[in-house]
Amino acid sequence: MELIEKSISSIKPLNQEILAKANERLANQARPAGSLGMLEPVSARLAAIFGSLDVRLDNKVIVTCAGDHGVTDEGVSLFPQAVTAQMVFNFVNQGASINVLARHAGARVKVADLGVNFDFDPALPIFHKKVGKGTANFARTPAMPRGDAVKSVRAGIEIVSELLAEGPVEMLGTGDMGIGNTTPSSAVIAAFSGIAVDKLTGRGTGIGDAALANKIRVIAQALDLHRPDPRDPFDVLAKVGGFEIGGLAGLVIGAAAAGIPVVCDGLIATAGALIACELAPAAKAYLFASHRSVEVGHRFMHEHLGVEPLLDLGFRLGEGTGAAVAMELLDAATRVLCEIKTFEEVAIVDAQK
Amino acid sequence: MELIEKSISSIKPLNQEILAKANERLANQARPAGSLGMLEPVSARLAAIFGSLDVRLDNKVIVTCAGDHGVTDEGVSLFPQAVTAQMVFNFVNQGASINVLARHAGARVKVADLGVNFDFDPALPIFHKKVGKGTANFARTPAMPRGDAVKSVRAGIEIVSELLAEGPVEMLGTGDMGIGNTTPSSAVIAAFSGIAVDKLTGRGTGIGDAALANKIRVIAQALDLHRPDPRDPFDVLAKVGGFEIGGLAGLVIGAAAAGIPVVCDGLIATAGALIACELAPAAKAYLFASHRSVEVGHRFMHEHLGVEPLLDLGFRLGEGTGAAVAMELLDAATRVLCEIKTFEEVAIVDAQK
Repeated sequence: MELIEKSISSIKPLNQEILAKANERLANQARPAGSLGMLEPVSARLAAIFGSLDVRLDNKVIVTCAGDHGVTDEGVSLFPQAVTAQMVFNFVNQGASINVLARHAGARVKVADLGVNFDFDPALPIFHKKVGKGTANFARTPAMPRGDAVKSVRAGIEIVSELLAEGPVEMLGTGDMGIGNTTPSSAVIAAFSGIAVDKLTGRGTGIGDAALANKIRVIAQALDLHRPDPRDPFDVLAKVGGFEIGGLAGLVIGAAAAGIPVVCDGLIATAGALIACELAPAAKAYLFASHRSVEVGHRFMHEHLGVEPLLDLGFRLGEGTGAAVAMELLDAATRVLCEIKTFEEVAIVDAQK
Repeated sequence: MELIEKSISSIKPLNQEILAKANERLANQARPAGSLGMLEPVSARLAAIFGSLDVRLDNKVIVTCAGDHGVTDEGVSLFPQAVTAQMVFNFVNQGASINVLARHAGARVKVADLGVNFDFDPALPIFHKKVGKGTANFARTPAMPRGDAVKSVRAGIEIVSELLAEGPVEMLGTGDMGIGNTTPSSAVIAAFSGIAVDKLTGRGTGIGDAALANKIRVIAQALDLHRPDPRDPFDVLAKVGGFEIGGLAGLVIGAAAAGIPVVCDGLIATAGALIACELAPAAKAYLFASHRSVEVGHRFMHEHLGVEPLLDLGFRLGEGTGAAVAMELLDAATRVLCEIKTFEEVAIVDAQK
């Protein structure tokens, strides 16, 4: 627990002086005030994180956390559990969606095994952080012991340290891989928000009506059976979460503690961010919501966090794909702040007041 | 008129064989079907435009068309008309918002004077296509003679030819600069759609309530006075349009005729695209709507065109800024189609059917 507590307590508030300077510069640029919409507060917040108006996001990394889920026994997903490990190999071989979109965004992809039900060769170039070989089926028992929930969050924090030991990182994207993991993610937001499960639960990789009804029933019964305490994020994670969800929470805490902005991907990555922000409310200042997924629970997560996603492209893939695309916008935002000239700099007549 | 007619008749339909192949490849990629949302049909359409699954958008250009508007005499804008010419210099000097965002997207910016109320030095590196020194105040008389409407569209087509004479272009973005030009743009969509002016008219650069009420009155009275014929796009352009709006229409027609995809920016660029697609319905296959502007009329334009914008970032700037940001998404879409591996290529178990 020590590393987690230490990390949480070391999260610094944003640099308010730079934030004010950034907002002043944005307001004085030779264009109508506010005309670059969401890019403006994003650019100011990035400036405040780095303490500079000229932020350079030269080293971007997306960490895709993988884990398996015992709840797949209940028929909640179209794909068999074995696909999780197969996709890990696909990520390592650079052929997956996240590899393609991260490459386009100029980001590296790093994969982390938090709990895949497969024994990877220790030489495989991934973060080996396996907490267990898949969670238990939470339709019957809690997904994991409380100690494993703590371990998975700690593993995420460790990954950030290990990344930083390799070299500088100015932006961290979070992504997921885990067959069945929209089910624990919907359960997590249901536990925190108290909103009815049928409102929060979507079709994941594309299940039909009967499977969706079953998925809703499985989640609702599990919440009823385990009664996770919404004031205790580790209890929620342990009872209805997943190893990669804990890892994703740890990434957010670790990045915030290191002063690095985090771009959060879809439903699963945001479930991790929810747990992170419940544990460490100060981490939210470092969090950027990349996109709104087709998964209906995602908007409730954003509402709960009080964040507005940048993109709404109809993605429902995970892996970090939405985070990768949004990184290009965040990068553009840094250029907006420091490169667009002010009225004074270009001697253009300002608006008639 | 000859060039316009020739261009319209030379617009080719999309390559249906490649479109089908693209859709087949997307459906077989190692991810849930449809999981990359809007990027999928975009990538397939780009493939069909170029007749290849491996589209490379190496040469991107944004053409920002500038023009002035006599209707500014009615107090419809916060800024004085002189700012249009000043911003042209700002574009040429690379300090404006569009320069910054285009640079980030890897696109060049070219400025075109379609009708600025200023005599530019012929040596200034812009497209010199002045049709008039600002339109007439359409609150009193038609904005321009019909012949000038034709000239402005023709000028846009000529710009595409001149660009292509300089070198290859695989993607054209359209942007605008013109103090007061949300007023003619709202008038154009009102003329085509018949929707009430107060529903279509926004605050432009940020006018207050009284100025907005005045703007609505000015547009409604002009439509009542001139009665533009919605079945005659040149009549609409002449009576309540603008020189840069005609140029923007010509860009869409010229690009479509040359087989080049066009990314359309905000309210004014989309007013041009509307006129283009009314003149040449086949051009729509080459058109991509970049973003939804804060300007309320924009969504009615998209509805009228039957297109869905990629981004909704709260922009209300013009210049081509939304087009620049969207170009990064379109570029990413080309990589999605050809680089994400199929289930067969990576030997991953497909979904249980």
